[in-house]
Amino acid sequence: MIFVGFGFLMVFLQRYGFSSVGFTFLLAAFALQWSTLVQGFFHSFHHGHIYVGVESMINADFCAGAVLISFGAVLGKTGPVQLLLMALLEVVMFGVNEFVLLSLLGVRDAGGSMTIHTFGAYFGLVFSRVLYRPQLEKSKHRQGSVYHSDLFAMIGTIFLWIFWPSFNSAPTSLGDVQHRTALNTYYSLTASTLSTFALSALVSGDGRLDMVHIQNAALAGGVVVGTSGEMMLTPFGALTAGFLAGTISTLGYKFLTPILESKFKVEDTCGVHNLHGMPGVLGAFLGVLVAGLATHEAYGDGLENVFPLIAKGQRSAKSQAVYQLFGLSVTLVFAFVGGSLGGFLLRFPYLDSPSDSQCYEDQIYWEVPGQHEPEAQTPLNVEESDTRA
Amino acid sequence: MIFVGFGFLMVFLQRYGFSSVGFTFLLAAFALQWSTLVQGFFHSFHHGHIYVGVESMINADFCAGAVLISFGAVLGKTGPVQLLLMALLEVVMFGVNEFVLLSLLGVRDAGGSMTIHTFGAYFGLVFSRVLYRPQLEKSKHRQGSVYHSDLFAMIGTIFLWIFWPSFNSAPTSLGDVQHRTALNTYYSLTASTLSTFALSALVSGDGRLDMVHIQNAALAGGVVVGTSGEMMLTPFGALTAGFLAGTISTLGYKFLTPILESKFKVEDTCGVHNLHGMPGVLGAFLGVLVAGLATHEAYGDGLENVFPLIAKGQRSAKSQAVYQLFGLSVTLVFAFVGGSLGGFLLRFPYLDSPSDSQCYEDQIYWEVPGQHEPEAQTPLNVEESDTRA
Amino acid sequence: MIFVGFGFLMVFLQRYGFSSVGFTFLLAAFALQWSTLVQGFFHSFHHGHIYVGVESMINADFCAGAVLISFGAVLGKTGPVQLLLMALLEVVMFGVNEFVLLSLLGVRDAGGSMTIHTFGAYFGLVFSRVLYRPQLEKSKHRQGSVYHSDLFAMIGTIFLWIFWPSFNSAPTSLGDVQHRTALNTYYSLTASTLSTFALSALVSGDGRLDMVHIQNAALAGGVVVGTSGEMMLTPFGALTAGFLAGTISTLGYKFLTPILESKFKVEDTCGVHNLHGMPGVLGAFLGVLVAGLATHEAYGDGLENVFPLIAKGQRSAKSQAVYQLFGLSVTLVFAFVGGSLGGFLLRFPYLDSPSDSQCYEDQIYWEVPGQHEPEAQTPLNVEESDTRA
Repeated sequence: MIFVGFGFLMVFLQRYGFSSVGFTFLLAAFALQWSTLVQGFFHSFHHGHIYVGVESMINADFCAGAVLISFGAVLGKTGPVQLLLMALLEVVMFGVNEFVLLSLLGVRDAGGSMTIHTFGAYFGLVFSRVLYRPQLEKSKHRQGSVYHSDLFAMIGTIFLWIFWPSFNSAPTSLGDVQHRTALNTYYSLTASTLSTFALSALVSGDGRLDMVHIQNAALAGGVVVGTSGEMMLTPFGALTAGFLAGTISTLGYKFLTPILESKFKVEDTCGVHNLHGMPGVLGAFLGVLVAGLATHEAYGDGLENVFPLIAKGQRSAKSQAVYQLFGLSVTLVFAFVGGSLGGFLLRFPYLDSPSDSQCYEDQIYWEVPGQHEPEAQTPLNVEESDTRA
Repeated sequence: MIFVGFGFLMVFLQRYGFSSVGFTFLLAAFALQWSTLVQGFFHSFHHGHIYVGVESMINADFCAGAVLISFGAVLGKTGPVQLLLMALLEVVMFGVNEFVLLSLLGVRDAGGSMTIHTFGAYFGLVFSRVLYRPQLEKSKHRQGSVYHSDLFAMIGTIFLWIFWPSFNSAPTSLGDVQHRTALNTYYSLTASTLSTFALSALVSGDGRLDMVHIQNAALAGGVVVGTSGEMMLTPFGALTAGFLAGTISTLGYKFLTPILESKFKVEDTCGVHNLHGMPGVLGAFLGVLVAGLATHEAYGDGLENVFPLIAKGQRSAKSQAVYQLFGLSVTLVFAFVGGSLGGFLLRFPYLDSPSDSQCYEDQIYWEVPGQHEPEAQTPLNVEESDTRA
Repeated sequence: MIFVGFGFLMVFLQRYGFSSVGFTFLLAAFALQWSTLVQGFFHSFHHGHIYVGVESMINADFCAGAVLISFGAVLGKTGPVQLLLMALLEVVMFGVNEFVLLSLLGVRDAGGSMTIHTFGAYFGLVFSRVLYRPQLEKSKHRQGSVYHSDLFAMIGTIFLWIFWPSFNSAPTSLGDVQHRTALNTYYSLTASTLSTFALSALVSGDGRLDMVHIQNAALAGGVVVGTSGEMMLTPFGALTAGFLAGTISTLGYKFLTPILESKFKVEDTCGVHNLHGMPGVLGAFLGVLVAGLATHEAYGDGLENVFPLIAKGQRSAKSQAVYQLFGLSVTLVFAFVGGSLGGFLLRFPYLDSPSDSQCYEDQIYWEVPGQHEPEAQTPLNVEESDTRA
């Protein structure tokens, strides 16, 4: 349930705090239930019963994580019913993709660089692309943050940063592997935090830092070791991976996000492409590399816990690497198909999506204290002077 | 100590954030110490010494939880000295009630639907009734929330939501029972969250959501399985319980709270009747039902951990159910007697309670930055000079 | 990584929230990496390799804690590069001091009253003294808090309060000792919280509470049992220690901090002398006392886990007490030498430190939303229309 922490990461929008944290809550509650069923059907369906336990709880949590990542791409432009329908489809696609990767292909992805982050990000981005609104600039003035909303978002960042070593190591086998995963994640996060600060100052022009980069790119180190965290990545490898992840993530926020929007019509509200998409794909490639280098000497008796098929002699390290790469391709295909399908089914404004001029605005969906008529006067005078100040 | 998370749930009031979180802290620190003594006297007093351990820490924490629930009913209308005296009495009543239920009657109530939630809520409500102020509307303008105070309160909600499975399972026996309790709580919380969103939109008239419902009723699923969480509730049972709890809680906020105030003169600031009172009683009934259905077949060897008296053959499932029901009655009696007693002893304004026009106002008790004279001009200028300071 | 919680404790400044939490993040990420190397070199360097594990992670976390404490003393008056250079030096000094105390002198200091709190506080205070700015009053108007920044800081307080029993017990040996440490910390924290409330009201003149006291002094109970928490302190001892710690800490904020600034030219932004300095030294003395009273009878078989040298007969309880006292002296020497050295190396304004009139101001280092020109108009109009809306 820890993924609800994502909710606060999205509170940065000046007029969308209730929806960010509220719909996170709604989506998580729905996805946790629905994915317990879907994943139970794939993984623990015996004699007409689904068996549940702590493991199914962790799996459902990870699936909810992917849904919340996709939510980040369309934040502010969709209504709660639309989001629930998106989750309805995404949970199924997630379950199928995870089943294909982990059970059919024997791919390793404990912390979900592929199954959670790559899948969630590209599902959301394609979904956002299909729902593209040419008139979105009518809501542009509400898209920024204000001082306190940025501080709220930092609560989410710190919460996720502290608990990320636990996320990545939760589904691994106990003992050595779990400790190794936690340590690799820890090193990678510290490195991505440093590279984010350095890059943010470097690319800003005037040497000042951008809160958006810190809030997000500092976490990219957790994403990038999602696949390889349980493997013999070594501390040096984890630091390098984290450094790269923080770097591409920050550069993505600065240079790629505007291009994605202007050229490719992909409006990515939270920049999930930078925090989950690119670092997820990088993490998948890192997994290919580290799996391909696996030897009996390096892992000893622990090989069985990380690469059971190699330990049993059914697969060489090289072929495991090929399977990892194939797993990434499968994930991207499922994400694109799922996101397109979801987008086309839900793109018409017959649902509860806000109009072009009402995006990023809480009072469409919430009774906001102190404001009884929707859009009465300039409803946003509120924070306007705020940002003008 | 985790119950301090309640503090943030109460921060929703626009001008009472310091007091909400500060007095939570004060009451928790006092109740933890005092209940270690009181409960130690009942449960682990041997040869003139009280024995303490992790278990006594958890027990004290649960007692502090009950005190904080009662605080929620009178939030904004009482001073810290008055609250400490209330806690002085309530901790004793809590200890006696818990001793009668768990030790004398052999009632099961691991997560405290009765001992914590029902007791805390009705103690607080009766206490609030006795302290009823006919002139409270003088402070009405300060009773609402503002945008950021609602976001702060959501921090409390999310914190409690994430940790509730751990609360309910903390005092159960290790292993299977603990896992079952966590899973049941988890399913119930997801269901109450969904039903809260649905009901909140349904009852609002214009389809918009009310942040107060989400902040509170979404947690009712944790309360309702406090008794039956360790039992063979089944996932379906947990989901149903959570759904009902979220529903009655939301309906309570919408329809019952105004009636309680206007007709019964019970002013319930945080709506503890909706989050703890009704779901607690419902949880107690659910415990009666599930205990009455207990069989050796369903629990196997685990029966001894959940119903030791049934396992030893000293009691039938049916008679356990009767004892559970009797436990609820005892709890309600102790809560009403305790709350009345507390109210009558503390109702005179000789203590530090605020005057009718100064309720829900921090600066009576706190040096609020930027405001040196209490009640200077319109009370909400507050933030003006605040920020200018 | 849990020490990042300190970040929020420092968010109380009205215009320095981004820097408080951002630079905490930056310093923690850097210190965690650098101290893994430095401490690895001292404690687990074998055959040319540093061995890492969960223990080295906890050690690095504690070192980062000391760096963040020092940061609290100079908060608002230093730039990020200057802080990183401070951390570069401080981590080395911390590592040497810890090695001398724990490995060479056989001093016990599980929760770090000496190695973390005393060291971090006096390093920071001496550093701040050397960097003293006579013209700092030019930034005085930004040194206070505002309503919401104080609430943000309380998030840090509550987070640290809840997790402090885990901090202090993390590095102790498992089982009994760990439980005892957690319980002692818990009792001490509850006592310091109560004494803080009482003293804060007593010293205020008008009976009102000061949020600064609650945010900080309530935590002094965790600091004061850092050394003796794992020892046979007894609940009564822990309560007394906490009571004293909360008392001196509150009195320190009220009376000592202004004197330190006006007479001794030590400007201590967060009051680390009150929360970490004095309670840390008090905790070290408490350790001397409790160690000196250690007997085989009181500890039984557990003596080996707490005082291995006494258990092996290599040291008497009295001589252990002397070593503890000597450990405090060594820590103070290292802190003074380190802080002075750091201050002299970094005191010239050639680095990125803000000018005298730009202290406690985010926009020197951050792109603050809605504010493109530093200090345009009254920058803080912000909340005005907000609350009125």
